[in-house]
Amino acid sequence: MALSLGELAVRFGCELKGDPDAQVDSVATLQNATDRAVTFLANPRYRRHLAQTRAGAVVLESRFAAECPVAALIAADPYVTYARIAALLFPEPQFPAGVDRSAQVSPQATIAASASIAANVVIEAGVRIGERVRVGPGCVVLADSSIDADTRLVANVTLCQGVHLGARVLLHPGVVIGADGFGLAPERGRWVKVPQVGGVRIGNDVEIGANTTVDRGAIDDTIIEDGVKLDNQIQIGHNVRVGAHTAIAGCTGVSGSTSIGRNCMIGGMVGIAGHLEIGDGVFITGRTLVSRSITRPGTYSGGLPADDVRRWRRNAARFRHLDELARRVEQLGGGKLGDSETEGEDD
Amino acid sequence: MALSLGELAVRFGCELKGDPDAQVDSVATLQNATDRAVTFLANPRYRRHLAQTRAGAVVLESRFAAECPVAALIAADPYVTYARIAALLFPEPQFPAGVDRSAQVSPQATIAASASIAANVVIEAGVRIGERVRVGPGCVVLADSSIDADTRLVANVTLCQGVHLGARVLLHPGVVIGADGFGLAPERGRWVKVPQVGGVRIGNDVEIGANTTVDRGAIDDTIIEDGVKLDNQIQIGHNVRVGAHTAIAGCTGVSGSTSIGRNCMIGGMVGIAGHLEIGDGVFITGRTLVSRSITRPGTYSGGLPADDVRRWRRNAARFRHLDELARRVEQLGGGKLGDSETEGEDD
Amino acid sequence: MALSLGELAVRFGCELKGDPDAQVDSVATLQNATDRAVTFLANPRYRRHLAQTRAGAVVLESRFAAECPVAALIAADPYVTYARIAALLFPEPQFPAGVDRSAQVSPQATIAASASIAANVVIEAGVRIGERVRVGPGCVVLADSSIDADTRLVANVTLCQGVHLGARVLLHPGVVIGADGFGLAPERGRWVKVPQVGGVRIGNDVEIGANTTVDRGAIDDTIIEDGVKLDNQIQIGHNVRVGAHTAIAGCTGVSGSTSIGRNCMIGGMVGIAGHLEIGDGVFITGRTLVSRSITRPGTYSGGLPADDVRRWRRNAARFRHLDELARRVEQLGGGKLGDSETEGEDD
Repeated sequence: MALSLGELAVRFGCELKGDPDAQVDSVATLQNATDRAVTFLANPRYRRHLAQTRAGAVVLESRFAAECPVAALIAADPYVTYARIAALLFPEPQFPAGVDRSAQVSPQATIAASASIAANVVIEAGVRIGERVRVGPGCVVLADSSIDADTRLVANVTLCQGVHLGARVLLHPGVVIGADGFGLAPERGRWVKVPQVGGVRIGNDVEIGANTTVDRGAIDDTIIEDGVKLDNQIQIGHNVRVGAHTAIAGCTGVSGSTSIGRNCMIGGMVGIAGHLEIGDGVFITGRTLVSRSITRPGTYSGGLPADDVRRWRRNAARFRHLDELARRVEQLGGGKLGDSETEGEDD
Repeated sequence: MALSLGELAVRFGCELKGDPDAQVDSVATLQNATDRAVTFLANPRYRRHLAQTRAGAVVLESRFAAECPVAALIAADPYVTYARIAALLFPEPQFPAGVDRSAQVSPQATIAASASIAANVVIEAGVRIGERVRVGPGCVVLADSSIDADTRLVANVTLCQGVHLGARVLLHPGVVIGADGFGLAPERGRWVKVPQVGGVRIGNDVEIGANTTVDRGAIDDTIIEDGVKLDNQIQIGHNVRVGAHTAIAGCTGVSGSTSIGRNCMIGGMVGIAGHLEIGDGVFITGRTLVSRSITRPGTYSGGLPADDVRRWRRNAARFRHLDELARRVEQLGGGKLGDSETEGEDD
Repeated sequence: MALSLGELAVRFGCELKGDPDAQVDSVATLQNATDRAVTFLANPRYRRHLAQTRAGAVVLESRFAAECPVAALIAADPYVTYARIAALLFPEPQFPAGVDRSAQVSPQATIAASASIAANVVIEAGVRIGERVRVGPGCVVLADSSIDADTRLVANVTLCQGVHLGARVLLHPGVVIGADGFGLAPERGRWVKVPQVGGVRIGNDVEIGANTTVDRGAIDDTIIEDGVKLDNQIQIGHNVRVGAHTAIAGCTGVSGSTSIGRNCMIGGMVGIAGHLEIGDGVFITGRTLVSRSITRPGTYSGGLPADDVRRWRRNAARFRHLDELARRVEQLGGGKLGDSETEGEDD
């Protein structure tokens, strides 16, 4: 699809510096853009590429407009404006309404006429599929689940029984929603399985990345609220609640019964223990271990950065004696340094 | 299914305080229970909810019975008793015997008459499927694997060739058993693949969570013993052995050729290096790095808890100079503090 | 397949100590080998098993030949030679050319006559499948992807649209290539999706382990160069580049736009932040957090090893006051210890 810069400026409320009739039909990075491509400058670390760009237009803040050698679309938030332009140039794929002949759909399922059920899909009894839903190839939807309008399961997604997806949800391949939580009761050296009889409720406008898993509740439901964005390979335990518009980066794990607030940003490979409360507006940087509740908004960290292996080993060896070191310093200097026993990790 | 409290008390050996004819048909949490629901008090942190519960019955220890405002089922281990009651109220789904028309089953496979093979399953030659086994939608069982009685593959599970599952095993969606281990021999800056010709043997009563992977052995088999419980998104490398009744929480990785003992409990996101021996009865808390063998039973930890980002950064920066700090203290105080070079992480 | 030791010696350039007519047909470990099996000694920690072995032949370095109680195949690099012998004894499975009747292949796809398309595969329009490619059961290949000769998708693999695989690539079950990257623009407390319009290009001779995910690029492509080996459950973010012949162990995550050099070795459960440059020949040990670029070849570490829980807690509690401790030491001793604020983790 080709659009003129004038159309883009009007549609997205940008000030245009350049020819309103110039046409663009693609997107590109500052370095690789040709004169038919829109690009953007959002992260100042890429500013050095601006002077050399050959883009058709650059979406940027007004403070960088003077440096722009080509047409500029001036926006208060260039990244958001770029995202909207890209969505216009690359519209979502359209899927044919109807059920592929190779799909196995229970006669006890209800499929909206405008829904698109792809090849080799399996849909069990009691399932309800809303308008314009796309269930991509190889997906399995077990009994009594429901999917609201305009949701898309890309391919090879599994919904276990009794899972409810809101509208405009996007699930990438390999996602599993509603597998049993890790509920075990110990009895004389063996494990008794605790039946996982809760469900999963996913709100509207949720996106879940490839191979991420969200377990069903043990008794009550696991809940992912509206607008939550989960990256790839995340594990969400049973009875977790993730508050609206929270984003979680890849490989993070959230243990059972923890509640995360709204508008949080949680980095990659973070580990969050079970039965905690994380408040609204909490930012957690990558690789942090969260073993206690966090009630105050703010940024929390917990990862030690890489170092040369020899220096790392010397320091790591000293860490094993840190308490002794601190005691020695207390003896030398008289004073007491913080607490020890009471502030460690507690599970 | 509805049951009377009297029946439950007799069946599970509980002392009943309350009306033996009262009927229950569901389970609930203490807070949300209605008068047809059974609930339980196991974790003392939920004791504060006991006085307000409206449950049909609460399974609890005798020491809490006096505080219970509704019928009480008194049990020595309320969580185990609750698990058994829930399993009775919510029996496992029953699956129809036979092979779905859309399943692709090799004529060289042997399928017990009572087994249930769902839609879009693929079963290759030489596979043996035992009595009452359920192979759910979308599962793939490659050549020469075998599955013993009463095992269930929920959906979209993959068994590679020559994998052996015991009886009453439960595999959740996205599980992959028997993919090649990471066996590579370096040769002049390139990697030569080491054929992975071992298999995988999974014992009886094993449960494996969604998207967990267990690699096949390089030469001998990878072994998961009876009663092991693996949560979601765990990676078990080639030739690992996990001892009977050990439980491992989500996102943990175990590198090749490591042996874990019986009755261990390993937390989430733990990383265990290869070629180690972990003894019986070892507990490892979440996010620990295990880089050496652990021979003594006990609890081991290794995760630093989250802190406010500013304080964290100051401390992390100091960590880079911890050895220097310790040397300075040694100079100031005369004595020597532990060892350094010899005790660091060794791979 | 049975082979004589004489054939093996000639074929792989080994010196043979033993009967050239002795036949072998399997591989085994030193401990479990029978007289028809080839085994090897590469890791000196297994040398203690050499004297007792009953193998048909042991591949080893000349310095261990005198200790070998059975036939020896003397090789400069026993592990590589063993790998080649094992590949000869256990040839790759052969798959029948043609498209299984149950596969759903678009008439707009191009499938080489020698390719093997298994049961319940879905291949969309515009896909190109090269000679002798195997697409295993349950795989989904979305529109406009291409797969070069001799590549194998084992089973239940998903390629999203516009993914390009080189020749002799091996993808294990559950792999997802080309799902959307985690591109989000914040706008007034909500997230605007940034369309992910780049692709993924995978080079030749790449192997990718079970349930690993490689995201498509946001604008340009995500690139995995020739000879890269990725273990299981790895997450590769959008626009990452992994240089040729780099190997990455399981559960590692690489955030978006990071570039990793050639011939790197990255351990398991490593977390690498986004927008970094890792040079050629960098080794990173398991569980390290990489939050800054690494330009010099060398070995880098970042994991603190497990300790007894009581000692760990005392030391972890002291860590929270490490900066205060260092200041105290500075006061006591006069001098300044490294820097603090400037060297911490920076994202």
